[in-house]
Amino acid sequence: MRRFFSARQLAHAPALELHNGGFTAFAETPSRAATIRDAIGGAEEPADRGDAAIRAVHSADYLAFLAEAPARWAAAGRPGDAMGYVWPVVGRRSLRIERIDGLIGRYSFDASTPLTADSYGSAYWSAQSALAATHAVLGGERAAFALCRPPGHHAGSDYLGGYCYLNTAAIAAQAAIDAGRQRVAILDIDYHHGNGTQDIFWDRGDVFYASIHADPATDYPFYWGHADERGEGDGHGATLNLPLPQGSGLEPFRRAQATVLEAIARFAPDLLIVSLGVDTWEGDPISHFKLTTGDYAVLAADIAGFGWPTVVAMEGGYAVDALGANVASFLGGF
Amino acid sequence: MRRFFSARQLAHAPALELHNGGFTAFAETPSRAATIRDAIGGAEEPADRGDAAIRAVHSADYLAFLAEAPARWAAAGRPGDAMGYVWPVVGRRSLRIERIDGLIGRYSFDASTPLTADSYGSAYWSAQSALAATHAVLGGERAAFALCRPPGHHAGSDYLGGYCYLNTAAIAAQAAIDAGRQRVAILDIDYHHGNGTQDIFWDRGDVFYASIHADPATDYPFYWGHADERGEGDGHGATLNLPLPQGSGLEPFRRAQATVLEAIARFAPDLLIVSLGVDTWEGDPISHFKLTTGDYAVLAADIAGFGWPTVVAMEGGYAVDALGANVASFLGGF
Repeated sequence: MRRFFSARQLAHAPALELHNGGFTAFAETPSRAATIRDAIGGAEEPADRGDAAIRAVHSADYLAFLAEAPARWAAAGRPGDAMGYVWPVVGRRSLRIERIDGLIGRYSFDASTPLTADSYGSAYWSAQSALAATHAVLGGERAAFALCRPPGHHAGSDYLGGYCYLNTAAIAAQAAIDAGRQRVAILDIDYHHGNGTQDIFWDRGDVFYASIHADPATDYPFYWGHADERGEGDGHGATLNLPLPQGSGLEPFRRAQATVLEAIARFAPDLLIVSLGVDTWEGDPISHFKLTTGDYAVLAADIAGFGWPTVVAMEGGYAVDALGANVASFLGGF
Repeated sequence: MRRFFSARQLAHAPALELHNGGFTAFAETPSRAATIRDAIGGAEEPADRGDAAIRAVHSADYLAFLAEAPARWAAAGRPGDAMGYVWPVVGRRSLRIERIDGLIGRYSFDASTPLTADSYGSAYWSAQSALAATHAVLGGERAAFALCRPPGHHAGSDYLGGYCYLNTAAIAAQAAIDAGRQRVAILDIDYHHGNGTQDIFWDRGDVFYASIHADPATDYPFYWGHADERGEGDGHGATLNLPLPQGSGLEPFRRAQATVLEAIARFAPDLLIVSLGVDTWEGDPISHFKLTTGDYAVLAADIAGFGWPTVVAMEGGYAVDALGANVASFLGGF
């Protein structure tokens, strides 16, 4: 399986995040991606396809904000990495906001996703890795792996959050649609619900979004991923959420995945994108499922059995020492 | 002028707030209210009127959250005061959320308003002070002063923020309506827009909300208080926002207040409630207007000239050493 990754994805390295009432070390470290790259025997450098595919998913004002925010933060004399402290509680609309603190709140939903001068560049190359894998599969490969980092599935068309700035899976899906594919399915098996991906395709029938994740009653991102969220308009029924309780191991996860795969089979996709998080691993420091390293091979084989051309895009996973083995298990099982 | 305040309003004392990228000492200190109380020669203890008037403004689920949050925070093993780190970016709906961190985000809009075990009690007595002043005026007094602390105008029917937990001005206005008054006007002259008050009466024609404040393009709360926000439905036209640029002194402020007072006169209120912030003072540490201590007497006299029965309810002001003189100047001018 071809694998894509750029060392430029490692530059982004915020210091701290706000979590559960205090600042803690930023969990989505560059070492995450480096250890996966080494465990899978290296990866190809992606081509630079520019930002057209990124602009097909993210709003122009959001991308302008991402580009300008670090300099505005510095110009305002703020110490450390850029993060918000106030967020819109009501429906958002286009507003003229000049102060960086207000802009960050407008374009984010948590205080766990700081912006540094390197954030956009690393996210850009994370998206390029996703596009490289997608074009490899569109060109005839059975499957390809994008070692995306920063991850993407919490980023919406106009917001960042959950360590995510650009939605790599959504960019890949949209690129496949724009290349002529009719129907794309995204299977999100990260521990956390992929709220950004869901929002981006919420009212569309051409991209099916299905997620297995920790119940948002107990786990981030809380406000999305409830079982009754099924999409709207043309997208009604093209969103499927299967929340599982904390403590879930292989058997309930595999049953949920079988349910999701049957739904995707009825959708009959031209392409499958797997948002792969290995924060479902039993030893993950911020998550609470009980999958073992060997379980990832089982889940991957179940997915591969359907035969769809498949892009595997990396999302979360925070037990750095185990990330390489868990991803290698998944790719090997596939 | 009768003045109301309970020492129980001083118990609430969070340690830290998130502001402009880092934790700083909580600015809304108990000493604020104590110094005002002393400068105005003391105040009467309000009667305990119970929580019916509070429940007339705030949703039952929000009040349950306020009551339970400190214990849930402690039970989760969280250090320090309760604060969120993630907020809903999309329209909110009734959600089953069990984790305290998710609940806080659901019921708040910033990380500057921590919840302590004393917060609800102090906010309750702040509301009682507002109710005592309101009933004094409904009973025939020309005017009365409620030394509300914590302040109220940033709290919505189901959210806290901006150092506010219960919306004292809204509770006072609703109590007057429930006591048979037909039309109540709220004049908000705090430096910051009173987003909570605006939201609570957004679609109602019986309560006119008018605010003079720093332009939300540059100042908290950013997402509310823009000049085009005029209310909706029955409330269309019953919201009036006059944002002013940073650096504004008496002349532009007094002109804006004259415009607002003419609008209120056309509304012909039975009762006026003034949300009084003295963070418009030239030396306020977190605000940027240029009013002097003497200016407050001028503004108060302009308001008093209209002759409406008036409740003055305290909101912000963070230059502790000057608070007493500024409030005394306003009350003296009135």
